[in-house]
Amino acid sequence: MAFDHKHLIDITEYSDTDIMTILETAKAFSSVNERKIKKVPTLKGITVVNMFNEPSTRTRSSFELAEKRLSADCLNFGGSSTSSVKGESLIDTVETLNAYKIDAVVVRDKHAGAPYIVSQHTPASVIDAGDGKHQHPTQALLDLYTIWEHKQDFKGLKVAIVGDVGHSRVCGSLVPALKIMGAEVTLVAPGTLMPPRPEVLGADHATPYLDEVLPDMDVVYMLRVQRERLEGAPFPSLTEYHELFGLTKKREKLMKPDAIICHPGPINRGVEFDSYMADHPQRSVILEQVYAGICVRMAVLYLLLGGADNGLNS
Amino acid sequence: MAFDHKHLIDITEYSDTDIMTILETAKAFSSVNERKIKKVPTLKGITVVNMFNEPSTRTRSSFELAEKRLSADCLNFGGSSTSSVKGESLIDTVETLNAYKIDAVVVRDKHAGAPYIVSQHTPASVIDAGDGKHQHPTQALLDLYTIWEHKQDFKGLKVAIVGDVGHSRVCGSLVPALKIMGAEVTLVAPGTLMPPRPEVLGADHATPYLDEVLPDMDVVYMLRVQRERLEGAPFPSLTEYHELFGLTKKREKLMKPDAIICHPGPINRGVEFDSYMADHPQRSVILEQVYAGICVRMAVLYLLLGGADNGLNS
Amino acid sequence: MAFDHKHLIDITEYSDTDIMTILETAKAFSSVNERKIKKVPTLKGITVVNMFNEPSTRTRSSFELAEKRLSADCLNFGGSSTSSVKGESLIDTVETLNAYKIDAVVVRDKHAGAPYIVSQHTPASVIDAGDGKHQHPTQALLDLYTIWEHKQDFKGLKVAIVGDVGHSRVCGSLVPALKIMGAEVTLVAPGTLMPPRPEVLGADHATPYLDEVLPDMDVVYMLRVQRERLEGAPFPSLTEYHELFGLTKKREKLMKPDAIICHPGPINRGVEFDSYMADHPQRSVILEQVYAGICVRMAVLYLLLGGADNGLNS
Repeated sequence: MAFDHKHLIDITEYSDTDIMTILETAKAFSSVNERKIKKVPTLKGITVVNMFNEPSTRTRSSFELAEKRLSADCLNFGGSSTSSVKGESLIDTVETLNAYKIDAVVVRDKHAGAPYIVSQHTPASVIDAGDGKHQHPTQALLDLYTIWEHKQDFKGLKVAIVGDVGHSRVCGSLVPALKIMGAEVTLVAPGTLMPPRPEVLGADHATPYLDEVLPDMDVVYMLRVQRERLEGAPFPSLTEYHELFGLTKKREKLMKPDAIICHPGPINRGVEFDSYMADHPQRSVILEQVYAGICVRMAVLYLLLGGADNGLNS
Repeated sequence: MAFDHKHLIDITEYSDTDIMTILETAKAFSSVNERKIKKVPTLKGITVVNMFNEPSTRTRSSFELAEKRLSADCLNFGGSSTSSVKGESLIDTVETLNAYKIDAVVVRDKHAGAPYIVSQHTPASVIDAGDGKHQHPTQALLDLYTIWEHKQDFKGLKVAIVGDVGHSRVCGSLVPALKIMGAEVTLVAPGTLMPPRPEVLGADHATPYLDEVLPDMDVVYMLRVQRERLEGAPFPSLTEYHELFGLTKKREKLMKPDAIICHPGPINRGVEFDSYMADHPQRSVILEQVYAGICVRMAVLYLLLGGADNGLNS
Repeated sequence: MAFDHKHLIDITEYSDTDIMTILETAKAFSSVNERKIKKVPTLKGITVVNMFNEPSTRTRSSFELAEKRLSADCLNFGGSSTSSVKGESLIDTVETLNAYKIDAVVVRDKHAGAPYIVSQHTPASVIDAGDGKHQHPTQALLDLYTIWEHKQDFKGLKVAIVGDVGHSRVCGSLVPALKIMGAEVTLVAPGTLMPPRPEVLGADHATPYLDEVLPDMDVVYMLRVQRERLEGAPFPSLTEYHELFGLTKKREKLMKPDAIICHPGPINRGVEFDSYMADHPQRSVILEQVYAGICVRMAVLYLLLGGADNGLNS
């Protein structure tokens, strides 16, 4: 199992083989999470810092549990109480963490590119946990894991990504990840939320008409709506958004019988979905995505820190 | 040792035998807390989430230490940084925790009934750590533990609960718990802080006159005064409260020689007590209650998660 | 190895032998921090509370990692969410911690003397992590460790401490610590930031003229500038401060070839230093100080809790 990466910052640096290695390792760690004793000694004595310079309950919790189930020592560092308040630069903060002899740092930052800057100044492995509107690669990997569980193969799979494409870091990693794996990606968004040049993201198609593309899709990935963004905008309102882009019981009739629905969470009921669709027992895989997050983050930590080659035991 | 509960939400669902099982298990865990190495591997690999949607240093710390001394992996989830900020519903948050494959969730919430709602949507064990003005069952259990240590038997024991009965979740669990164990409960409060129908709580007596009942009591349980509540009210002021309902050196003369004083903490010196009484070496058991909190919470976690029947080792 | 202290509150209570014992123990723990598995079971089952009543990312993180690498159970207690909000006194908070059967408490407080008060009310070991403008003894010890690594001997070593001497708790511990070890200490500060009676600190000399003393110094210790303090003051401004007291490439010419530069962090680039000096590969030992912090705090926890005499294994 050749896996030759030190950081996870830009998903486009990973090959389809790399990504499959992560998914298969995550599958192996899934057995840990299903056990009564949900813990392995793999990262005992390894220090992982969660540097969250932007609040995040879900992503931080998911990483924290992944670290604890691997027996790592984890340190939450960041938020409003950090030294960033004292005006220290990001680089000086990283140098401090280096002096702690840490092994990996999970970086969430409102500035695009922050994890890359961190990686230029640390011997530790860096994992991007979301940087501005740029990337969120572990989200893309957990999405792929969930899709893989349901569809087994990515080749030719038709995936629609619906919503605020223009401001989405989820898109920034998910579109290239899907392309690497051979899927066909269609972006669906109102003109106000579509980037001016959607082809830059690498998707195959872009359209504002959900109903036209829905019948062909194997996977419908709903992006989270930032209510604040719509509330101030001329179009669409939340009601218009739900009417035109929301997945509803009525709109389900357009979908393929085995099409599944994804969302990065937390969901806005009545906006991206009605509750019928959000909770649809066959189609909605949203909670499977949450579970996949733990497994994929365990896999990424394990592989980046050297895996079996480095004497770690899974 | 038959203990057949999954959750601890409503103390009235527990029998006297169940409660004695908890107290005896807590007694066994007391030896762990007295040791040099205050740790047992009982809950190794078990995940416990502390979901505190309302700030609480003491209760959270007590649970966190209980979990760590049982070797559980604990995740603090909640507070101002949570996804509740993003408008997610309580149920969607619980579904997320379920996807993490957690084993127990400790719930503190300002809304009465929140732990019950959580229990309806999770396969994990739910422990109510205080919900609105409703219940606070581990508080009641640690109170019982402390009383049991001093009085050995609850049958016919005379207990006065003094103070803001009307707004107290401590009362909501303690009164029924004492009644289950066979004690005789008297509520003492000014009319403004007594619920309109005190008999609903199940107490035997209710009165505004502390001095009349004090001579008969074996246990005097002082509720915490919320200063904010009195400061806005016509009667009583803090001074009047201390004069009429505070335990003072002068008032001690009315008490039985072996009567003890409890309080859920943190105390307001000069309001519920003068310092002579708060620190009374024979009567005040307030710090024993704090200690009992660790032991009882270890016991509750152990028993709810299956105890010895489930292969856990204490 | 006789080490007979229970607390670390006032560095002047430590002898040169005590301090050397800490430095040598820290040196031993340095090997733990350099390992792949950065963890020893030394404090397994021991409870350490980090009671930070004032925000601090670096000091808290450093203690937290030291505790985790010694396998202690650590509880973060304090900050804006604490019971101090509810008006409880410091002593009542300490009594609560005592009831948790804790073994050590690390105290950061904005009030000078708070750690001493804590030590008067607990059987646990107390470590001062910074109290008001009073002391910060683990900072002094990590400074000594770093100097020791470079200079091997303290006898006759010439050390300048430069900056806001008058408001510095770092000075409050570092000056006496250096004197205990036999160094010669010169305080350098503008009159506005020099205490009215600098001799009280125990330093050998005090001057406002950095350039006059710089040529003789073996160690130049730059104190952190509180920007807020200068911004409101008539003299010096930040620019004047940098001009008169900042270490610059130009000023380096005055320094001995082997003189080193220390700073407690986080640094203000362009104030205490220019970046040439802050990052000087031979002279700047600032990041070594950060690393020393982990080693020294592990040593202090180990020694205060009884070390090998108490059956702890390092």
